[in-house]
Amino acid sequence: MAETAKKVALIASRGTLDWAYPPFILGSAAAAMDMEVVIFFTFYGLPLLNKTIDAKVSPHSNPAMPMKMPFGNEGFQNINWQIPKIITGNVPGFDTLATSLMKETFKNKGVATIEELRELCIDCGVKFIACQMTMDVFGFSKEDFIDGVEFAGAAMFLEYAADADIQLFI
Amino acid sequence: MAETAKKVALIASRGTLDWAYPPFILGSAAAAMDMEVVIFFTFYGLPLLNKTIDAKVSPHSNPAMPMKMPFGNEGFQNINWQIPKIITGNVPGFDTLATSLMKETFKNKGVATIEELRELCIDCGVKFIACQMTMDVFGFSKEDFIDGVEFAGAAMFLEYAADADIQLFI
Amino acid sequence: MAETAKKVALIASRGTLDWAYPPFILGSAAAAMDMEVVIFFTFYGLPLLNKTIDAKVSPHSNPAMPMKMPFGNEGFQNINWQIPKIITGNVPGFDTLATSLMKETFKNKGVATIEELRELCIDCGVKFIACQMTMDVFGFSKEDFIDGVEFAGAAMFLEYAADADIQLFI
Repeated sequence: MAETAKKVALIASRGTLDWAYPPFILGSAAAAMDMEVVIFFTFYGLPLLNKTIDAKVSPHSNPAMPMKMPFGNEGFQNINWQIPKIITGNVPGFDTLATSLMKETFKNKGVATIEELRELCIDCGVKFIACQMTMDVFGFSKEDFIDGVEFAGAAMFLEYAADADIQLFI
Repeated sequence: MAETAKKVALIASRGTLDWAYPPFILGSAAAAMDMEVVIFFTFYGLPLLNKTIDAKVSPHSNPAMPMKMPFGNEGFQNINWQIPKIITGNVPGFDTLATSLMKETFKNKGVATIEELRELCIDCGVKFIACQMTMDVFGFSKEDFIDGVEFAGAAMFLEYAADADIQLFI
Repeated sequence: MAETAKKVALIASRGTLDWAYPPFILGSAAAAMDMEVVIFFTFYGLPLLNKTIDAKVSPHSNPAMPMKMPFGNEGFQNINWQIPKIITGNVPGFDTLATSLMKETFKNKGVATIEELRELCIDCGVKFIACQMTMDVFGFSKEDFIDGVEFAGAAMFLEYAADADIQLFI
């Protein structure tokens, strides 16, 4: 990588399925453009480094989340279903259903899974850093994570970010 | 615009009524200061480009959201109502009510609507870019959007952002 | 502070207990590294400037939030409890309980409270700016806030951010 490579510093702070996409998509895209990329995983974003990612979505809490069906013809798939809150908020397993539907929708559209995007990041040389304070507070251990992860605190991230061309808190 | 104009790169990723304000407020303010502004609409932020914006708020999911009444005297308006979760989470139409109240509160305080702020951005030369991947995944078509929107992917945004003076993921 | 000090511009836009940590942790860490730090408090982030912070968390709306017990042996503390949505969403006081548990967990792990981190920021010279528009819309007055807060709008923040080395919208 040339010395003049642009530097990208991302913070992945959220751990739901939907918000897992932006850091991995932006990270892999930037790396593919020969940028140097560091993703700092902190707070709810830390489980995205787990060997098996168990991220979910919760339509109940996000009135902006579209509910789509991943089958049927195009017109049917484009319907944005309005599910009453009494169902989204109370029916056991509703989030699991919504999560399955979102995964299926992404798959049908040819978008890679979170695990695939993460793998792509690693292959492109993106550096993953786990926030040590969050690990300690929420009881994560290094064994939970995929290989190649580094461990550091906010100070290390800030030092890198201060010389980066792009910094985003996701 | 002078060659030395500061550049601003914003990502609008959320689509609820409250989170629709920051990109349009920051975008129009920066443009009014002669900065060059690009807003990249992705994920839940994409519907903010729809001809008619149908954004809502959901107090149930955000314990930090104040519930205010947009009428009565100042003391009454300043009360932060505590609504039990069993109501906010289950009563059909509660989000619609909360959305109306928030819109009314903003209007009373002389704050422009989302549509007005968006129009102001366009008038000031802010560039709107719709994320092509999200359009494909969630089934949006170009006809849904207002005029003047451009279409691109994350790579195009990253290229612009790498030379920008301000980058924010909203 | 040297003229060559790195500049950091943070926006604190969220007011729940969990999201109150990142701006104060990043702000105090950056200041400790001799960076010049401004935090702009806007929208739901504004109450973080109140003399008494009354921030909560809401596990119901965030499927990525771990539920941990702050007592018992390490194995017990590391369990991630799965609470049915019908309880998290409807039981009065559940958020208050979850908030207490999170505070206790942080305390046990030796992490400072929000109030302590805020005090640390002030001691390190971090500048706090309250968004005037939000104050007006949500009915905050200067008397609500701790001492030393400055008052300004988005334009002032953008001017500072355009010359900053790090900008993050939290």
